[in-house]
Formats: sequence, C-alpha cells, structure tokens
Amino acid sequence: MDFDSKDYFCFERRVQFSEADPMGVVHHAQYLHFFEEARIAWLMDRKLEGLHYPNSELVLGVLSTECQHLKPAFVFDELKVFLQVRRLRLKVEFRYVIFAPPYQEPVARGKSLHVMMNSGLKVVRPPKDLTRTLEKETWTEI
Amino acid sequence: MDFDSKDYFCFERRVQFSEADPMGVVHHAQYLHFFEEARIAWLMDRKLEGLHYPNSELVLGVLSTECQHLKPAFVFDELKVFLQVRRLRLKVEFRYVIFAPPYQEPVARGKSLHVMMNSGLKVVRPPKDLTRTLEKETWTEI
Amino acid sequence: MDFDSKDYFCFERRVQFSEADPMGVVHHAQYLHFFEEARIAWLMDRKLEGLHYPNSELVLGVLSTECQHLKPAFVFDELKVFLQVRRLRLKVEFRYVIFAPPYQEPVARGKSLHVMMNSGLKVVRPPKDLTRTLEKETWTEI
Amino acid sequence: MDFDSKDYFCFERRVQFSEADPMGVVHHAQYLHFFEEARIAWLMDRKLEGLHYPNSELVLGVLSTECQHLKPAFVFDELKVFLQVRRLRLKVEFRYVIFAPPYQEPVARGKSLHVMMNSGLKVVRPPKDLTRTLEKETWTEI
Repeated sequence: MDFDSKDYFCFERRVQFSEADPMGVVHHAQYLHFFEEARIAWLMDRKLEGLHYPNSELVLGVLSTECQHLKPAFVFDELKVFLQVRRLRLKVEFRYVIFAPPYQEPVARGKSLHVMMNSGLKVVRPPKDLTRTLEKETWTEI
Repeated sequence: MDFDSKDYFCFERRVQFSEADPMGVVHHAQYLHFFEEARIAWLMDRKLEGLHYPNSELVLGVLSTECQHLKPAFVFDELKVFLQVRRLRLKVEFRYVIFAPPYQEPVARGKSLHVMMNSGLKVVRPPKDLTRTLEKETWTEI
Repeated sequence: MDFDSKDYFCFERRVQFSEADPMGVVHHAQYLHFFEEARIAWLMDRKLEGLHYPNSELVLGVLSTECQHLKPAFVFDELKVFLQVRRLRLKVEFRYVIFAPPYQEPVARGKSLHVMMNSGLKVVRPPKDLTRTLEKETWTEI
Repeated sequence: MDFDSKDYFCFERRVQFSEADPMGVVHHAQYLHFFEEARIAWLMDRKLEGLHYPNSELVLGVLSTECQHLKPAFVFDELKVFLQVRRLRLKVEFRYVIFAPPYQEPVARGKSLHVMMNSGLKVVRPPKDLTRTLEKETWTEI
C-alpha cells in the first residue's frame, strides 16, 4: 500500500454512540469532524494554536472537502486519523487516511483545502510560523 | 390530558436520518435542538427576530434545560413541537410538548430557562417588544 | 451561469443557530447534512421513500462526498438546495448547488456518490422503481 | 463547595471548534453529548462495556436529562466531566459536574436517568455485573 504511518501525523479518537446512524455505522458527515479534530490536534502538536481562533482572530477557512468511504466504522471504534499537510501558495492542503480496528485497511480517505481568514472572513497570507512549519512537513507523492 | 393544542404555538419538523442513533430512535440530545428550533420559529412568528442575533447583538442565553422522554421517535417522523412561554422577571421560560405520528401521546416534554444576553455574554433586561409579546402569551397552569 | 433552476429539484431549509460556528458562518460539515436532507426530500417527492429505511431495509449508502465552499452562509438564511441525480450502473450520483439570500450566486456546490445497501451493508442492485425514476431525471451536461 | 473531585469518576475532553456557536461559547446541546461520553468512559473504566451495544444488544436508554449552565465554556477548553452514579431500583441515575479552565468553579451541572433496554426498546432488569458495580460507587449526599 502507498501508506507508511511514520510519514503522517496521527490523531486518535473514539467513535461515540451518537455518531453512528440507524445502520449502526458512523454517519458520513462525522468524517469531516474527524478531519477537523485532526487538523486542530496537528496545530497544537506543532505549537501553532496561538495563530488560530480563539487565541488569534485567524482561522483555517475551508475552501473544499472530499471524502471516500471504503469501509464502515462502528460505535466505540478507536479511530486513527493520519494526516499530511502542504502549502500551495496562499492555500493549505490537508490529506487524511482513517483506520479503524483491526487497522489493516483504511476506512476512509479525504482531503481539505484551506486559506487563512481573519474574523471579517477576508483571506490573509499564511503567517510565517505556519509557512515555516509547512516547509518541514512530509508530503508523500502518490 | 392536560394538553390543548390550541393554547400552544406549534412548530413542525421532520426527523432526519442522521438524527437517529443505532437503536433507530432519535438521539436524546437532538431534542434540545428541536426545542431551540421551535423557540426561533416562535420568535419569527411573533416578529421578534429583529431582537435576536444575527439581527441584533442579543441572544436568548440558556440557563437550564430539561427533557423527559416518554416514547421513542423515529426517522422521518413529522414531529409537532408545541411551545408555551412566559416571563419570570429577568428570565424567560419555555415549555415544550413533542408529538410524533400518530399524535396520540407526547413523545417528550421539556423546559428551558433563558435570559437575554449581549455579545459580551452580559445579562440584559428583556427588550420592550419581547415583554409586551410575553404578556399576551398563554401559559396553562398544570 | 451554467445553472437553470428549473432543471433541478429544489429543497428549502432554514439555517439554525447551532449550525453556525464561532465565525458566525455555517460550519462546513453541515453542508453534508443539507445534501442528505435534500436527497431525502427528493426521494419523498418522487414517492420513493418506501424503498428506503425505515420503510424498507435499504439505504442509499455513501461512497464519497465532495463540497466546494464559494461564499459563507449565515444563521437564519433560508437556503435553497438544488439537486440533480443520475444513475451510473450500480451507483447513483447526486449533484448539489446551494444558494443563500439574495440568491445571486451559489454559496456551495457538491456531489455525492451512492449505492443501495441492505441492512447487512451489502451492495444491492438499485430497485426498479428507483431506476425507472432515474431515467426521467434531468442531468445538465457542464 | 459541596464537591470533592476524588469522589467522582473524571472524564477529560477537549472542546472542538464546531461545538461552539456564533457567541463563541459551547452550544448548550453539546453538554448532553459530554454527559454521554462520560457515561461511556465510565462503563469502559468499570469494564462494563461488554454489557452495552455494540458488544451486547443492551443500551442505557435515556428517561430524562437536565442541565444547569453556570458559566460559558470556550473552544479548545480541556473540560473535566466529573460523574457519580447510583441505582434506583430498575433505574440508574447519573450526576455530572463539568469544569473548564481554570477549574475553579463548575461551568455546568446535570443529571440523567436511565433504564437498561434491549434492541426492541423494552426495559430489562439491570444486569448483575452492573448492579454489583453500582453498589460500590460513591454517591455524595448534598
């Protein structure tokens, strides 16, 4: 597989009861929340949360998202959300691969594209601390 | 029963697929959303939405909520949320009774207690337009 | 613009207070809920809800979603979700365009790809009533 | 204060961006999710998750909830949800006290009342493993 976990930031997260739908599987819209929680965990891990609301007026505004669902995930699964991130000029792209037990194959893959925005929802240049960190991140060519 | 629908404001709302949990019934936390949506529909019906965010800086801040679950509600049920409201000095109390098909007995009852707050989260006196409307609302003694 | 509203099914939906985030705009994950609600409204409009859970054991399982965010939407906006749908062999594709007041330009565009699944999460052939309806749906080539 | 943290089970949980509303504070309906997540964490801590869906057909059905909001909580707050639980014949009562930084005073207090239900939504007697555990739990008289 084109996936080597050591090239990714990893965020772990238990599926909650209310996140599964009447089929007993995680509802598809929850995956965008898993992606967002992983982004925030990455920001904190890289000591960048000071750049982001509520610590500053900036946010990672969302330009687009996509998600492929490969297998279902279930209540109380301990998900592993693997993340990579790169800069595309003014934009920041995140890529996600989610595994559920027994962690053999991904349950979902996704992407999201962002710009930094201020509280007036205007696009701003990514702050230096962010771009400096992004230069050091791994992005696997696929 | 102690319930006469003509003494209540009525808000109708279809249960969505994602609002039911793995038991196939509406998840209990969703009822607080049904209550809030009914409050907002009432505000609009009474032409009071101009008092409330985003049309003003004020919101109906929530001091407390409670909900009793009497029967389950199911995906695609067309709920009827019946609401009454009264003023308690600086506070505003809402009471809710929710019916699902076949609308014979309530599926839930609830209450919420509010104060008007500004964007700095400070309690403010209820605006005149609100208190004047509240004087005309029906509140059934039980 | 490549958009003629009369070629689309239209679902209307008010943005609720809890659907906006601290920036005051609709949170991006909510758009997948708007898409789902529009799909269900379309199913009901086409008298196909009998094919779908909870009226049958089948569901429109989600293979993938994507969403582009073009402009923000705000609390209490009356959204119009425009939808088209087509069959791709075993799959069913939905396309969405969402407008908010003043309804001049879309706030979001999206797609979702589905298969019919049974309660054991096995893919099943789309039922006849569904495929017959899909043959009559408009799909605008772009 | 009538609160001694060592008499409570403690569950920690970061507030996510999407859980705050346009006022920048945690939306009141989220607290019922915090309560539920704390119950599940307690079940797991007491090695009782085998009694509960998806490991068995039983769930802790919700009869009622209540929540008092004492102070706001904010995005990225690391909440501490303190929980006590006791048996009331066929019912199980949970009590919650939530603290946010700087953990001086509670931001919320709440209660929920439950019965064990099977997948047909019928009330069942609490399983032995549960009642035995409940006998050993601390419940502070207030």
